[in-house]
Amino acid sequence: MYERFWQQAGDKSTIVIPGWQSMSYFSDAGSLCWFLEPEFAKEIIRLHKTVGNAVTEDRYIVVGTGSTQLYQAVLYALSPQDAVEPLSVVSAAPYYSSYPLITDCLKSGLYKWAGDARSFNKEGPFIELVTSPNNPDGYVRQSVVNKSGGILVHDLAYYWPQYTPIASAANHDIMLFTVSKSTGHAGMRIGWALVKDEEVAKKMVKFVELNTIGVSKDSQLRAAKVLQVVIHSCQYPTSLGSLFDFSAHLMEERWKLLRAAVRQSGLFTLPEFSPGSCSFLNRSFAPQPAFAWLKCQEPMEDCEGFLRSNNIITRSGKHFGVSPQYVRISMLDRDENFYIFVERLSTIHQRQSVQVDETYGGIE
Amino acid sequence: MYERFWQQAGDKSTIVIPGWQSMSYFSDAGSLCWFLEPEFAKEIIRLHKTVGNAVTEDRYIVVGTGSTQLYQAVLYALSPQDAVEPLSVVSAAPYYSSYPLITDCLKSGLYKWAGDARSFNKEGPFIELVTSPNNPDGYVRQSVVNKSGGILVHDLAYYWPQYTPIASAANHDIMLFTVSKSTGHAGMRIGWALVKDEEVAKKMVKFVELNTIGVSKDSQLRAAKVLQVVIHSCQYPTSLGSLFDFSAHLMEERWKLLRAAVRQSGLFTLPEFSPGSCSFLNRSFAPQPAFAWLKCQEPMEDCEGFLRSNNIITRSGKHFGVSPQYVRISMLDRDENFYIFVERLSTIHQRQSVQVDETYGGIE
Repeated sequence: MYERFWQQAGDKSTIVIPGWQSMSYFSDAGSLCWFLEPEFAKEIIRLHKTVGNAVTEDRYIVVGTGSTQLYQAVLYALSPQDAVEPLSVVSAAPYYSSYPLITDCLKSGLYKWAGDARSFNKEGPFIELVTSPNNPDGYVRQSVVNKSGGILVHDLAYYWPQYTPIASAANHDIMLFTVSKSTGHAGMRIGWALVKDEEVAKKMVKFVELNTIGVSKDSQLRAAKVLQVVIHSCQYPTSLGSLFDFSAHLMEERWKLLRAAVRQSGLFTLPEFSPGSCSFLNRSFAPQPAFAWLKCQEPMEDCEGFLRSNNIITRSGKHFGVSPQYVRISMLDRDENFYIFVERLSTIHQRQSVQVDETYGGIE
Repeated sequence: MYERFWQQAGDKSTIVIPGWQSMSYFSDAGSLCWFLEPEFAKEIIRLHKTVGNAVTEDRYIVVGTGSTQLYQAVLYALSPQDAVEPLSVVSAAPYYSSYPLITDCLKSGLYKWAGDARSFNKEGPFIELVTSPNNPDGYVRQSVVNKSGGILVHDLAYYWPQYTPIASAANHDIMLFTVSKSTGHAGMRIGWALVKDEEVAKKMVKFVELNTIGVSKDSQLRAAKVLQVVIHSCQYPTSLGSLFDFSAHLMEERWKLLRAAVRQSGLFTLPEFSPGSCSFLNRSFAPQPAFAWLKCQEPMEDCEGFLRSNNIITRSGKHFGVSPQYVRISMLDRDENFYIFVERLSTIHQRQSVQVDETYGGIE
């Protein structure tokens, strides 16, 4: 979805790295996060100041191989090494389907997935993941566990003006971001954490050191360049506007098409959002999330299976801790795939009983 | 140490990546390792064929964020998900100091560090890590556990002609390599595994997917370019020779200087190696490892502390599963640091009782 913006940006966003550069493990040996490229750190701060979506003052920046690695670094940093049982990790359903898989994949003695935060009632300390706007359903969120002992981790991957109005600068203890959702560069595998507590930041750095001995310098340098261009586009918009103008406009169009298709089909419902005022785009609009969280109407029970039989590949709600009546569908695919998807969705009603033999590979 | 070669290589090794390229998570959606750049895979095979250090036929290539991530991917892939107790992981001492730390850092229920392979006598299945040439001592190694049920993992990070004679193409089930030790590009965080068994390769891919959703495309593209230049330098050597001529020569010089310094000081010993014939360099030479594995002579017991008091920062043998009479010192630092190190080492005898107040930061 973002490709067109970057094609138009042209050479300004091109990175050139000679063979003899960035050979060492170290980026800034004396600093807390010794594998963080100072140039990238600088652009992160400038970007948040420009967009106004997060407070960077009095925060340590920890870079990760995507925010996925930083999520694990946070779990490692927050879990006591000498606890008798693993620390519980919860998030309100529907939650990001990878959280339980990542948390439990090594059967760690330090932490353990404990499911839906709304039904969590175990005694003792715990971690609550607050994804806002939420993956998969796009709603703005706050902590739901109403008891003490919880440590909050805010996954703000989607807290950018193309997806949701920026109400104010987020000011939490641990905040996670990623280039894949802000600029579209998923292949870079670059995320960053803004962390208030020095000891937590140090332990996160230790985890990334043990896990991958730092983070690709090449991608950090490229990310710095890309953020530079994003910031420049906010100050001096081109014919496409800033990156956020461009992508917010695209998301608005796509959501209009999606809602029209859903109305036409008559078999599904989508979340409804209230408009909010965005301090960055200087206008009021309703959230237009990166995912469509689609619900099949009764009596349909397996929405994923039904859509698959209609040549639309989705991810079932059961992976997100809720009923299979729901599915998640990406709204960030290339134009051609997105148009095929809404076209198919809109015509399902008419052809649902017709045997189709197309072999389209899948949209997710 | 490798910088001079890459400076001389000039533009040939420069990578240029426009902002709109490599944005997706996927590199080759249909292939087993869906995040492996096909261009990089091609150069890996060409490089091994050129050097003759590993068999690539009938192998799957899995790329990782350094071989550190691949080591964890291997543990995940080889451990049964339903075992009653964690799989034992062993390696003959002295072993790479990070192995126990990485293995146990999350207190996994799948696998557990079980120490020196030579004293391992537990019943049941286990993983034996065979690092050859070995980190820290440089010796060529084979499996030492003499019982069934073991799965061998070969860490061949140092099996390149600048460090050791290439006797034949390694032909093991699971072999790990990294650019940091072959071309010097540690900051790229790129490693690769050659894996015989399809199921093991698939599970390794699954781990990298859960851990970091793939591997930086930027670094893979850069690594492909760098390997291309290495292969070209073997076919058409410049005034510095091939990368391997250049670095083998440098290592030879450094080991001469190191042995002279050790002789002059009279307080230490180094491993002794027998020469072997190298099929790639077409000559016979003794190993010249990436690390000096230094032993203090009696009655000295804490070699690390003693060298620290002489302004040489090293890593104590105790981290490698042996006595603190040993220390490990990197032989791959920049020229100026290496020369300071051998100079200091050679004069220790004379000045060991003299109080020095230099504040040199450290060589490791």
